[in-house]
Amino acid sequence: MKTKKVRIAIAGYGNLGKGVELAVRQNEDMELVGVFTRRDPASVKLMTEGVRVYNISDAKNMADQVDVLIICGGSATDLPKQTPELAKYFNVIDSFDTHARIPEHFANVDKAAKENGHIAFISLGWDPGLFSLNRLYAESILPNGKSYTFWGKGVSQGHSDAIRRVKGVKRGIQYTCPVEAAMDAVRSGSQPELTTREKHTRECFVVAEEGADKAAIEAEIKGMKNYFDQYDTTVNFITEEEFDRVHNKMPHGGFVMRSGLTGDGEKTHQMIEYSLKLESNPEFTASVLVCYARAMSRLAAEGQTGCRTAFDIAPAYLSPLSGEELRAQML
Amino acid sequence: MKTKKVRIAIAGYGNLGKGVELAVRQNEDMELVGVFTRRDPASVKLMTEGVRVYNISDAKNMADQVDVLIICGGSATDLPKQTPELAKYFNVIDSFDTHARIPEHFANVDKAAKENGHIAFISLGWDPGLFSLNRLYAESILPNGKSYTFWGKGVSQGHSDAIRRVKGVKRGIQYTCPVEAAMDAVRSGSQPELTTREKHTRECFVVAEEGADKAAIEAEIKGMKNYFDQYDTTVNFITEEEFDRVHNKMPHGGFVMRSGLTGDGEKTHQMIEYSLKLESNPEFTASVLVCYARAMSRLAAEGQTGCRTAFDIAPAYLSPLSGEELRAQML
Repeated sequence: MKTKKVRIAIAGYGNLGKGVELAVRQNEDMELVGVFTRRDPASVKLMTEGVRVYNISDAKNMADQVDVLIICGGSATDLPKQTPELAKYFNVIDSFDTHARIPEHFANVDKAAKENGHIAFISLGWDPGLFSLNRLYAESILPNGKSYTFWGKGVSQGHSDAIRRVKGVKRGIQYTCPVEAAMDAVRSGSQPELTTREKHTRECFVVAEEGADKAAIEAEIKGMKNYFDQYDTTVNFITEEEFDRVHNKMPHGGFVMRSGLTGDGEKTHQMIEYSLKLESNPEFTASVLVCYARAMSRLAAEGQTGCRTAFDIAPAYLSPLSGEELRAQML
Repeated sequence: MKTKKVRIAIAGYGNLGKGVELAVRQNEDMELVGVFTRRDPASVKLMTEGVRVYNISDAKNMADQVDVLIICGGSATDLPKQTPELAKYFNVIDSFDTHARIPEHFANVDKAAKENGHIAFISLGWDPGLFSLNRLYAESILPNGKSYTFWGKGVSQGHSDAIRRVKGVKRGIQYTCPVEAAMDAVRSGSQPELTTREKHTRECFVVAEEGADKAAIEAEIKGMKNYFDQYDTTVNFITEEEFDRVHNKMPHGGFVMRSGLTGDGEKTHQMIEYSLKLESNPEFTASVLVCYARAMSRLAAEGQTGCRTAFDIAPAYLSPLSGEELRAQML
């Protein structure tokens, strides 16, 4: 089973890209061979000795030196363009997470990958990704049941951005919190119908500009359509010192639950629960992407092409262990 | 995607076989076509109208009427013989759970299945099965970390049998209980080294024979080598009426946890936890087997042969939904 290392490249060197760089180090069977950026390469300092930074426009010239390119752009505007484009030259992995646009993104990436003999994995990470896998396994096993996803406690980038757009806000961060009572109701087997408000609360920490109207800031945040108006929201004003000291991490996580019924008369309650508690969302997402790079190198060696999601990858492809080792040690 | 139903047969009609019969009913794309038993078929009454019971010796004559045979025998003596033998005539699924003997069982079943152009899945259920899958995913994603499995609260058949062999015991049942403090220590990220005693306790409920020496029974149970001597065990003597009223179910479950570290200096704690809370162990195990029967019918249609475990099956094969539906609804 020992073969040469999987050669990884990274496109986009933000929090996720840095996480990928660090995750590659944890896997002996992989090596980082380059980072592609839209910035001036000379301005980007990596944590890995001996690895070069290239402008993204030069990426295609590196195609023969890279087994898997992990694309670490944003879902809003970067990935819809980058992933199909780069799939022409590379086997690619992304973490595209705009759920509603996944079918369209899949079609675009699938076409580009197939036409150029490459393989592509999209929408990897934890949601979409591991949470999706757990929804699929649980719903397939317990067809008579109800599924629930709770997120948090964790930082929502979109909601934090929304806060920071409010007039008078200097710094702002938003935590999505699952409601414990709602989760306990699900665990009891009562299969409750839960409203948006009943499932999550939103907790905001804001540093106000000097002399800003705090009451107005709080009212504007709480009333913000789609972002906050359907939730019980708390707004806490803190000092910049506290903000920098306490709110400098990107924790996240959540819960996927399936409450099902089996047996004669469908009266037997069966509960499946999967949860993540992550001190760093981008580092964990990066770990998932890197693990799937191993699977990709194997599928590519089999000659597979086109687009795949986590649903399509047999679990054994993810592990550095052989089939024999897995059956002996992990089954 | 709509095709004819997957035709399921069951070999062995105990608790697990009955669970399979009931689970098939929950899946519109499957139908039960027969039950094979070692008993007199006339003595076996099914819950499904119009389905016949056959002697196991007649099974091979039914091969052309069955897509997937789910073998519901015991791991100690039944499955090591039955699965390779029946794989000559059928695509077969079993729940073989003697972890140490899985490699040998895999080899025997693989040979029989390949030689006869069939496909076989072994060691399905929740442990081995879903717990194994979660160990694999979590360890592949977080290579720097430590894994833990806790079982319970639930009935251990082996330990209950052991209690019932003690002189003076009329009825007996044993619950394996995970130690909450140990689980919380794992969740904290401290990656504790836990002894057998620190991870689980064993709780026994016993109905003593008239005039039996209860102190002697308790001492013999608590000192039983391998079964109880390494655990904190409690023995509760109860009336037969209470035993029948309270201890007539087969609940089980457990927890698979992975505590990992990522990031610069490997200081970021990432926690993955999977848990099951099952009111009926055999009904849930049956639900897993039946769900994998769907995957088997698809792999068989692709012409695949030989033995597989849960590690080898891409998740999408388990769902009645198409790839397009899965990506749109569940990713």
